[in-house]
Amino acid sequence: MPFEAVDGPSAEIIDGKSIAAKIKSQVASEILKMKDAVGKQPGLAVVLVGERSDSHTFVRTKMKACDEVGISSSVIELLADCTEDEVFHVVSNLNKDPSIHGVLVQLPLPKHLDEEKILNVVNPEKDVDGFHSFNMGSLAMKGREPFFIPCAAKSCIDLLLRSGVEIAGKNAVVIGRSKLVGLPVSLLLQRHHATVSVVHSFTKNAQELTREAEIIITDVGVPNMIRGNWLRSGAVVIDAGTNAVKDPNRKNGFHVTGDVCFEEAVRVASAITPVPGGLGPVTISMLLSNTLDSAKHAYGFV
Amino acid sequence: MPFEAVDGPSAEIIDGKSIAAKIKSQVASEILKMKDAVGKQPGLAVVLVGERSDSHTFVRTKMKACDEVGISSSVIELLADCTEDEVFHVVSNLNKDPSIHGVLVQLPLPKHLDEEKILNVVNPEKDVDGFHSFNMGSLAMKGREPFFIPCAAKSCIDLLLRSGVEIAGKNAVVIGRSKLVGLPVSLLLQRHHATVSVVHSFTKNAQELTREAEIIITDVGVPNMIRGNWLRSGAVVIDAGTNAVKDPNRKNGFHVTGDVCFEEAVRVASAITPVPGGLGPVTISMLLSNTLDSAKHAYGFV
Repeated sequence: MPFEAVDGPSAEIIDGKSIAAKIKSQVASEILKMKDAVGKQPGLAVVLVGERSDSHTFVRTKMKACDEVGISSSVIELLADCTEDEVFHVVSNLNKDPSIHGVLVQLPLPKHLDEEKILNVVNPEKDVDGFHSFNMGSLAMKGREPFFIPCAAKSCIDLLLRSGVEIAGKNAVVIGRSKLVGLPVSLLLQRHHATVSVVHSFTKNAQELTREAEIIITDVGVPNMIRGNWLRSGAVVIDAGTNAVKDPNRKNGFHVTGDVCFEEAVRVASAITPVPGGLGPVTISMLLSNTLDSAKHAYGFV
Repeated sequence: MPFEAVDGPSAEIIDGKSIAAKIKSQVASEILKMKDAVGKQPGLAVVLVGERSDSHTFVRTKMKACDEVGISSSVIELLADCTEDEVFHVVSNLNKDPSIHGVLVQLPLPKHLDEEKILNVVNPEKDVDGFHSFNMGSLAMKGREPFFIPCAAKSCIDLLLRSGVEIAGKNAVVIGRSKLVGLPVSLLLQRHHATVSVVHSFTKNAQELTREAEIIITDVGVPNMIRGNWLRSGAVVIDAGTNAVKDPNRKNGFHVTGDVCFEEAVRVASAITPVPGGLGPVTISMLLSNTLDSAKHAYGFV
């Protein structure tokens, strides 16, 4: 079916930056209260293996955000050729350190390291990324509560709720099934009583299924894959894609775009996140919020 | 849309009893080999709290099945008003006992006991029911392997594969989201690269969604809810419902029926499990298989 353009954009643009700022400001004010009450501040430790420049950039962004709200942060850097035992040793020291409330292993790890083993060594009570199997299982099972939910997935739901979207009973399509977004967000949407279909590379009728959905969350990694004619009128779209596309007009040679063709989708959807400036900033603020929650729990501060 | 009856039944009836017998016979023969090789047999322990007669019946059925294949089994009975600590104590002794390879807490527990806490005390490596959060999380996450997968869900996939159903790329609908069937089977279907939609009590268009599915797995607990006109021609139907329906013509006053109206579905589907005699017997044989796997792992017997 060809895309039918209507006149001009109609969707509400979900402003991730301003929502992130609100969350940060709330986190900062709660941290001040906690400091007043118990004399302690939250601590986040990031384990960073190797020299990937993108990982170093992400970690710096997280550190900066911690600093802005009053979370003390530290980075433990390991060489790209370190052993699994060295990583275990570092993580288990952080698990024991009472001043550290969040332990985060920056992904991806060098290929010789077993990601599953390493992520499962993090104490689930300090697993602010929510990637420990125990936390993911607790998220999956009705009536159980994980210590932490992966930040990007939690942010998707937060954006829906802040945009006034009722999730219960809605048809939701999740495109992609990563542990960062697709998997946990499909579990979260189910917790909120949406009817969830998960679409992926093996799906035959992805466009048709997506057109049935009132809520669409994408995390594919293919720029502009979701066109306007994939959407039904009035759908709400959360775009978790962050794809670098070559762009000779930019100083750094690329621009960042989502999985959704924004120009088309904005004319069909009722609300949509832009990329950049949508989910990304909220995800980082959610990491701060998770770290604060962990510290509050550790100090019995409610 | 009204149900269009065609002439006579057309679906292959998936014979759970005979498949269960095959699995049992294979388990029995592997146990003999293991005994020969390492002089040990698998051991299953069931913790049974309270006096529910249905639970006692289920446990007896499991014990009998263990006996048939050469698994030594024991039941630890606790009073209905026992404390959580008493259950923890029993479970943690079984966790330590090297002759026990499977620890199973019969559900449901009396209401004063916290099911989540108790199930999470079982050593994940002996959790033959697969209900520990760690195992469920490992099942959910691509690239991770749980020690055990819940028996009924594993049996659903086994029945599909034995019936020659290719799962990858198929549209599958799971109706119901219990931890026994709905949740784990939806995760398993995704592992096999089906496009999975989970339908539940909040779903608005359950019939319409189900009619799109090539594979349907139901675990609702409502007798005959899924009628012939919910199914597309050629669908494969696994019915995990076991519902007691009053029946004055039966000696015990009831008969057991599934979630699917078998008489109608059998004329539309290409393959279907009957109730009784479908998934039920296979589920029990899968428990035996899980227990054997655990013993093999413990004794390093491949």
